[in-house]
Amino acid sequence: MSGAARDRRVSEAISERRDRVNEAIERELPVEVPERLYEASRYLLDAGGKRLRPAMLLLAGEALADVEPGSTDYRAFPDAAGAPVDLMAAAVSVEVVHLFTLIHDDIMDEDDLRRGVPAVHRAYDTETAILAGDTLYSKAFEIMLRTGAPDDRSVRALEALATTCTEICEGQALDISFEHRESVAVDEYLSMIERKTAVLYGVASSLPAILLDADEATCRSLHQFGIDVGRAFQIQDDVLDLVMSEEAIGKRRGSDLIEGKQTLITVHAREAGVDVDAIFETVASADVSDAEIDDAVSRLDDAGSIDYARETAREYVESGKAELEALPENAARSLLADVADYLIERDH
Amino acid sequence: MSGAARDRRVSEAISERRDRVNEAIERELPVEVPERLYEASRYLLDAGGKRLRPAMLLLAGEALADVEPGSTDYRAFPDAAGAPVDLMAAAVSVEVVHLFTLIHDDIMDEDDLRRGVPAVHRAYDTETAILAGDTLYSKAFEIMLRTGAPDDRSVRALEALATTCTEICEGQALDISFEHRESVAVDEYLSMIERKTAVLYGVASSLPAILLDADEATCRSLHQFGIDVGRAFQIQDDVLDLVMSEEAIGKRRGSDLIEGKQTLITVHAREAGVDVDAIFETVASADVSDAEIDDAVSRLDDAGSIDYARETAREYVESGKAELEALPENAARSLLADVADYLIERDH
Repeated sequence: MSGAARDRRVSEAISERRDRVNEAIERELPVEVPERLYEASRYLLDAGGKRLRPAMLLLAGEALADVEPGSTDYRAFPDAAGAPVDLMAAAVSVEVVHLFTLIHDDIMDEDDLRRGVPAVHRAYDTETAILAGDTLYSKAFEIMLRTGAPDDRSVRALEALATTCTEICEGQALDISFEHRESVAVDEYLSMIERKTAVLYGVASSLPAILLDADEATCRSLHQFGIDVGRAFQIQDDVLDLVMSEEAIGKRRGSDLIEGKQTLITVHAREAGVDVDAIFETVASADVSDAEIDDAVSRLDDAGSIDYARETAREYVESGKAELEALPENAARSLLADVADYLIERDH
Repeated sequence: MSGAARDRRVSEAISERRDRVNEAIERELPVEVPERLYEASRYLLDAGGKRLRPAMLLLAGEALADVEPGSTDYRAFPDAAGAPVDLMAAAVSVEVVHLFTLIHDDIMDEDDLRRGVPAVHRAYDTETAILAGDTLYSKAFEIMLRTGAPDDRSVRALEALATTCTEICEGQALDISFEHRESVAVDEYLSMIERKTAVLYGVASSLPAILLDADEATCRSLHQFGIDVGRAFQIQDDVLDLVMSEEAIGKRRGSDLIEGKQTLITVHAREAGVDVDAIFETVASADVSDAEIDDAVSRLDDAGSIDYARETAREYVESGKAELEALPENAARSLLADVADYLIERDH
């Protein structure tokens, strides 16, 4: 299939699921008393977002259950024995965890904008943002308990969710610690993004296997698929920051460089002998010009670091897609593979 | 029994359980990589604390199982059918939730000290404190999954824990909102402390009933016992702030007044016609004298507000103790009742 046709198919698959996820969020996370707390908790959810993780969860469920994509009620999804499970509750739970981490990360990173609107701690205040994140955190567990799955599977789903949340915190702590370190090895960087970003894709992909009672090997394969795709997603974000215009990604080109953030590209460049500290120093200036940023990006490109990152992301996507062999061959599985490709070919 | 003998018995019961809880915390929450994150998460746990909530949980379990207090391994505690359940894991989980809320509350309230040491966001930094709280949050769920109870009870325990965490966030949001309001009704104040403080005592008291498979009525009675005792505990804290010396409670007498915090005493005084705003204004001055604080306290005392708070706490303790009738009559139940009395008679 041509790239354009595939991209359209993927976009449609994601946006159809996004609309249903948004409806479900309305029901699972209503604005209750105290209203200000719940409004702050809902603020970023209502500001948009592609709902990629829920979409992958739903698609993985459809592939597993071997149903035509979009044909089956996510609220009463057939498990291996045909009994109904509310997969949508699990999808909302995963998105709610993602939102909680965004709210707290924005406070920690002192970021002012998110999804084109002020971050929660700017739109409200830091106290409310901490508390909104904390509320979403427990709500994610409450919502995950609403799948109607038998108790043994619910326990496994909650274990997976809790472990994932701990790993995300560890990943964020490592990311912060890297800012205070002179050099970070490629392995360390990859281990950090596995925890900070990839594990949530891992749990999103494997939850349908747990909840629909797939065998252990299938659970593991889907988890690994999510981990690999999540790593690729993060690396692609690092690449886009350097190669795309402000228009395309909504923030200045090279903003990671300007903030002195380690990415797979800078970590690789340093190992390749590039004086990355000098680059950070040049672009950290308040009045850095676009030409200086272009020059910094060229130096990283000349060292092969951008290509290295692209190739690494591509390898992760390929190894992730290989894990999908554990699923029946069907349209949903093929869409899931296309979503993986899309994540590293997207330009925003 | 004389008050002094009872106090000694209660102190011993609490401290014996505290020592075992501390050992269990070492095992359930080891310092892992990244160390700084786990050290910050453990920092307040290691700074002390009475472990009141875990002690109540363990005592409630002993009363329910009708065993001699202190005679039975908390790690293999007999349920209604004699099968072993790790009650200690549940006790640690509840304490870990408590610690997470202290760390985040101290950031929100900009408090510098806790348990006689710098708050986590002062000993480390705000980023690390947010993340340490977030880590404890998911760890509490991970630890609650280690009781070895059958899955149906684990699911109920996790539901209770998640709902409790949400309510604590709601309570904290209400508490913050009260600071920006002119007047708060007694009912609103009591509803706030129910969520902010009492529900964690409620879940601590009822978790053994859930995990040991007691009947529904017993679960409800123990939950209500905890709620009532938790309310009384918070009101006693409000009273102590006004009546005890800095020596006894480790902070200046009247510090709630100085910070302009609403308590049951100020809320009652306002309803009784006292100009509470004028009191707040006088004591808010940076160089307020001890005599001015004495005078402010006298005005609240003259309005009967301190007595009202003491009586309200006493009534909650009495109604809480009445719920204990649901348990077999034994030494552990009697200790549990004594702990409730102790909480409103303590002087620190």
